[in-house]
Amino acid sequence: MLSISSRGQQMPPSPIRKLVPYAEAARKRGTKVYHLNIGQPDIETPPAILDAVRHADIKVLEYSHSAGNESYRKKLVEYYKRVGITVSHDQIIITTGGSEAIMFGFLTCLNPGDEVIIPEPFYANYNGFACSAGVTVVPITSRIENGFALPDISEFEKAITPKTKGIVICNPNNPTGYLYSRAEMEALKNICLKYNLYLFSDEAYREFCYDGEYVSALHLEGMDEHVLLMDTISKRYSACGARLGALVTKNKSVYDAAMKFAQARLSPPGLAQIMGEAAVDLPEDYFRAPKAEYLARRDLLVKRLNAMKGVYCPNPGGAFYAIARLPIDDSDKFCQWLLESFSYKNQTVMLAPATGFYGTPGLGKNEVRLAYVLNLDSINAAMDCLEKALEEYQGEGSR
Amino acid sequence: MLSISSRGQQMPPSPIRKLVPYAEAARKRGTKVYHLNIGQPDIETPPAILDAVRHADIKVLEYSHSAGNESYRKKLVEYYKRVGITVSHDQIIITTGGSEAIMFGFLTCLNPGDEVIIPEPFYANYNGFACSAGVTVVPITSRIENGFALPDISEFEKAITPKTKGIVICNPNNPTGYLYSRAEMEALKNICLKYNLYLFSDEAYREFCYDGEYVSALHLEGMDEHVLLMDTISKRYSACGARLGALVTKNKSVYDAAMKFAQARLSPPGLAQIMGEAAVDLPEDYFRAPKAEYLARRDLLVKRLNAMKGVYCPNPGGAFYAIARLPIDDSDKFCQWLLESFSYKNQTVMLAPATGFYGTPGLGKNEVRLAYVLNLDSINAAMDCLEKALEEYQGEGSR
Repeated sequence: MLSISSRGQQMPPSPIRKLVPYAEAARKRGTKVYHLNIGQPDIETPPAILDAVRHADIKVLEYSHSAGNESYRKKLVEYYKRVGITVSHDQIIITTGGSEAIMFGFLTCLNPGDEVIIPEPFYANYNGFACSAGVTVVPITSRIENGFALPDISEFEKAITPKTKGIVICNPNNPTGYLYSRAEMEALKNICLKYNLYLFSDEAYREFCYDGEYVSALHLEGMDEHVLLMDTISKRYSACGARLGALVTKNKSVYDAAMKFAQARLSPPGLAQIMGEAAVDLPEDYFRAPKAEYLARRDLLVKRLNAMKGVYCPNPGGAFYAIARLPIDDSDKFCQWLLESFSYKNQTVMLAPATGFYGTPGLGKNEVRLAYVLNLDSINAAMDCLEKALEEYQGEGSR
Repeated sequence: MLSISSRGQQMPPSPIRKLVPYAEAARKRGTKVYHLNIGQPDIETPPAILDAVRHADIKVLEYSHSAGNESYRKKLVEYYKRVGITVSHDQIIITTGGSEAIMFGFLTCLNPGDEVIIPEPFYANYNGFACSAGVTVVPITSRIENGFALPDISEFEKAITPKTKGIVICNPNNPTGYLYSRAEMEALKNICLKYNLYLFSDEAYREFCYDGEYVSALHLEGMDEHVLLMDTISKRYSACGARLGALVTKNKSVYDAAMKFAQARLSPPGLAQIMGEAAVDLPEDYFRAPKAEYLARRDLLVKRLNAMKGVYCPNPGGAFYAIARLPIDDSDKFCQWLLESFSYKNQTVMLAPATGFYGTPGLGKNEVRLAYVLNLDSINAAMDCLEKALEEYQGEGSR
């Protein structure tokens, strides 16, 4: 018998997508499903950046430079300057989505068997990239009681072993929406300097910070050698399908090594780079409208959730996710039940069980992640469904 | 000190791109450089497939299915049928270029420390993907004397160890242009069945077969569990920058495991999928013109090379590459010299030293790879340069 590799076996299936067949079945039954389970915004991709592709004069769609078109990298230098990050174009590698930036970072800095510490709950696909690279994820727990703030530095220190090579953060955070404070970022800096660790910083949601200050890992002084910024245009410009990201680092050895992985795959997507370049020239106030929209959605979602009996949802400071504690015993079962056995006015809601975002088994069983990527009316309708569902589910003895 | 990972250190730099700074310097001196060093065709990307993107009605550029849009996969089923391959859409995973298909294949089927046998000279980036996946490449040598035919099966058997898990072929071949015969493909089948090996088959150039029959790995009966087809639209439609490929396998366990890697990176590029889907609807005779053009170029290139004193170039049956033996002692030095110290009528030619395509150290030192991706006039001018260069280089005592 031909066998699948160990990593092919161990590779975790996407926890967000495993409920998809139940959602499809619900839709086939004629039930409308509100998708709060996945970070696919309904915000329009700016027409101007799609027009840039439409009007591009392309005779031969050639490979770009393996680091991405120089013209795009130079545009990104302007963009980063606006968010207070000073980099040069030869400190940027354009990647196929933020995903590839994470993968290049892990492959470049970490050996098989090395460990990275990640505050949980965390973006589930970090598990997949770690598995691909043979890296061990060591979770330390952030807690809903304090809004998923950074765990105390003593928790990091307890988790550090000789194999620990880095810390991975997502700021503002997916799945919690938590925005790390300057004090928390400084604490991360101190521990990275003390223990000589890389700081892998996923900042896909930086444009969407509602309360408090956005502090990038690249704002931290004295950390130039330690930081790998993992970025993407997916959420910023609602262009998830473009698959365009960036790995940014001032560590020249890391950059040069990452470039070898970039060369092996030849180049990032060409048409998407035209979009990305045009995006930097969007009007300065472009982000005002989507940010105001997300803020209104957050306020509504959090208010509706906290008004439900037995539900608690901390107010997330950024991104477009929230984690809520529900009066349920098993979020996987509950989310499946919502799709399989429940409807209200012929509608239901799809949520992501939080279990998939924790590395520690057993955590997240009474929590769900909600992505507020639908308009206010849909959020209200989805919350009506959830409210009724919780009443009904409890009435059924939590099954 | 923060350190780079072992694989980051061992990762080979691109052998094709390492001469780029010398080419840039030549261009800055005002010397025209004919680029026969890289497989970037000058053939126009079919306007109809770019128009499909231009006219696509996109409000939100969303993530596609992780396996790629179902509509595109269903179109590809039609395409594969035309080339005699019967597959269903749920045996296809759309990837970011052929590169990602290779990477998914290696990650899914091979453990770190496992070995794959590859006839050399081979596509140099297989080294990069193997290094990323911790896999060992075991080269067996094909020889210019018989046009780089498949090495004798006894050579494969000598190379097989308990760690051997697969064979990688590229057919028609990059860098040799060799087109494997039915008998050779059957021989590969027999050895895969006998030793229970995967057959990773890179068929990026299938449309460009000039002499003899194209036999896909998926044409081989009884090999459904063994074959992973790695494909791309890059060369087929001269759309290298689209970054759109496919992994095709009838082995359900492999497919399901590969899908987990696909889910982790969310989706392949969205705009490129629109191109790929439109490409299947190009007129049936679309390939006639580019194929005739490549054939004319091949004939000219091979004729010109073999007319040069001390040069031998076997006639490649497919793709758009040829390897020539030159009267030189060190192809790396010679290719650099062409850019650094030589010009004829203020022109020179950039070639790829064949050393980068061999796994066995010392091989390829008197061979270069030529990509016939330029028009006939340019090929003639480039061959004029090479002819003069060889006279001059030998006159200088081969330095």
